[in-house]
Amino acid sequence: MLPSGMIENITRPTLLLDLKKMESNIDSMIEKADRLNVKLVPHFKTHQSKEVAQYFRKKGLRSITVSSVLMAEYFVKHGWQDITVAFPFNRLEVGVINGFISQGVNVKLLITDVDTVSFLGKELVGAVDLFIELDAGYHRSGVNTNHIDEIRAIASEMAKSDNTKFYGLYCHPGNTYHEDSIDRIKSLWRDAIEKVNEVRLNLTDLGKDVVIRMGDTPGCAVVEDMKGVDEIGPGNFVFYDLVMNYLNVCDESNIAVAVACPIVAKNDERKEIVIHGGAVHFSKDHLFDESEQKFFGEMVILQEDGWSNIVPGAKLVSISQEHGILSVSDRLFDTLKVGDVIGILPIHSCLTANLMNEYVTLSGQKFEHM
Amino acid sequence: MLPSGMIENITRPTLLLDLKKMESNIDSMIEKADRLNVKLVPHFKTHQSKEVAQYFRKKGLRSITVSSVLMAEYFVKHGWQDITVAFPFNRLEVGVINGFISQGVNVKLLITDVDTVSFLGKELVGAVDLFIELDAGYHRSGVNTNHIDEIRAIASEMAKSDNTKFYGLYCHPGNTYHEDSIDRIKSLWRDAIEKVNEVRLNLTDLGKDVVIRMGDTPGCAVVEDMKGVDEIGPGNFVFYDLVMNYLNVCDESNIAVAVACPIVAKNDERKEIVIHGGAVHFSKDHLFDESEQKFFGEMVILQEDGWSNIVPGAKLVSISQEHGILSVSDRLFDTLKVGDVIGILPIHSCLTANLMNEYVTLSGQKFEHM
Repeated sequence: MLPSGMIENITRPTLLLDLKKMESNIDSMIEKADRLNVKLVPHFKTHQSKEVAQYFRKKGLRSITVSSVLMAEYFVKHGWQDITVAFPFNRLEVGVINGFISQGVNVKLLITDVDTVSFLGKELVGAVDLFIELDAGYHRSGVNTNHIDEIRAIASEMAKSDNTKFYGLYCHPGNTYHEDSIDRIKSLWRDAIEKVNEVRLNLTDLGKDVVIRMGDTPGCAVVEDMKGVDEIGPGNFVFYDLVMNYLNVCDESNIAVAVACPIVAKNDERKEIVIHGGAVHFSKDHLFDESEQKFFGEMVILQEDGWSNIVPGAKLVSISQEHGILSVSDRLFDTLKVGDVIGILPIHSCLTANLMNEYVTLSGQKFEHM
Repeated sequence: MLPSGMIENITRPTLLLDLKKMESNIDSMIEKADRLNVKLVPHFKTHQSKEVAQYFRKKGLRSITVSSVLMAEYFVKHGWQDITVAFPFNRLEVGVINGFISQGVNVKLLITDVDTVSFLGKELVGAVDLFIELDAGYHRSGVNTNHIDEIRAIASEMAKSDNTKFYGLYCHPGNTYHEDSIDRIKSLWRDAIEKVNEVRLNLTDLGKDVVIRMGDTPGCAVVEDMKGVDEIGPGNFVFYDLVMNYLNVCDESNIAVAVACPIVAKNDERKEIVIHGGAVHFSKDHLFDESEQKFFGEMVILQEDGWSNIVPGAKLVSISQEHGILSVSDRLFDTLKVGDVIGILPIHSCLTANLMNEYVTLSGQKFEHM
């Protein structure tokens, strides 16, 4: 519950974190992973916070995923000892990885070419686990699942050094973010799992107990048949956001972060509200409504115990560096006053958290963002 | 000149700052303001850096503009004593303004309604200078220049307290950012200047020596006839960026910042290069090329003395949180290697600087971002 007077103390754009919602999101994913017998290796790129990380630690999780070596450094500093850097390994950062190895950290890296494996074979001071990143159709990074020869060449190269251990196959089917139904997300995942398992079958002579890890939140949240999957590494589920809500991957009540924004001006003619809340708070990610209008966030009303459901039709229709323009109904326009503080649910919680740099819980506690 | 080995030392996305270009941009704007007899009150929202600010101080400038009270706090801490907060004043932050007043800072605020003036009249502990923000057609914030009664009511309210001094009329014709020719930018500015001057004529009984300040970089950079303008407050010109280059407001050689990004993977089939450089480095601002393809940055080659011209056809075509996908010609594809570091000119330098949080000059010096 918001301690009495807490909203009154907000004077600037502030990233509110509803711990109850967050914990429930975390618990659901842990319960699901247990039920489906897959290992949850949560991605910490969404929250990037040592305090949020503690909620996973309390639940007994020790293996985590990050999206950069820099982020790995942050979590190593805060006591995490088993970290997957889920990004095609940047060989210029091998020195940091060697530092991790010297500290006894269990490091897992993503590989997409033979040369990087031979480079690691020469440069590493100790052993790391390697994933081959596979592309099952998203076409961002990873080796195409059809390129069996290339994949086999990578796995063979790993066998040449004790320090480059073939651990698994990693697939982030991020195209699920662009689907328009749960059924499509499920069928896309089914297709990806099949492709990755076919690859595994082709590698039985080169690696045993080769693990398959799937990466994206939409799939991890909605797929119930995880046959052929050993590990999952979703990240966004910890907070969710409007993208996930529009995909029907989460309910709006699952969204665990909102940005509190002061109202600084009203425009009678356009029924627009000017808030302090712009691109330096929300980034420029957007969605389109039914009439193909771009929007950058949706409004909620801040309450003692958090925030209301989304106010229908109250959307952030335009943002510049610090300004946000909220378009609202006539009725709502009349009730909102300059000096009020309203809430905005973000389009993309990862980017919003990255920009806001600090969370304030509903009890007023501050959580850091790396 | 890049000290020998400097590029070799870059292992992660790094915001490079070419001081020579920056100084030349600053010098040109100072020279222009002097020549046209307007006062330059540079906007510091683009760089947000105490070190960059020093270049203005060395040139004798003492009055600056910022876009939030938070940013004002940063520059007050670093010795700036005459600050315009160019954002509709957020009355929840009046306590900070009173702190500034107590420290002897000369504060200028933007006003868009009568109530905020009466609020300030009651709450301020000393005098501040007030601008009425006018909307001459951009339709973001500010009072419509046609609403003379409303504007007169605001100016009259200011007269009721010694602490709310009517200083001037502020206009940010940000619609210049969406124009497609220098002529259109000039005519839009001419129109805005006329409207704002008409307002001033209507206020002669309510304020004398009422100053007119114009805000945007495109206009300040290209307009040569500043009759009717007393002060200009551009910000982006200090670095410029691809938006300004596509508007023909600057040459690509004026762009003073580039993000150095390591190449981490190559995709032969798609002739795509995967770099470490994504939405957490560039934001999601984009432009469209001739064939209406969205892009998020353009590539340059890093050199001893900075960087090359834009490599034709080498564009950042897609970004996610940390990944950037660079589409390049076959010939360029063959010359680029995993482990190389290339440069990306940003679409929007303000948002990129805000995300990168630190500059590295070509001689390896670090400049902070607040």
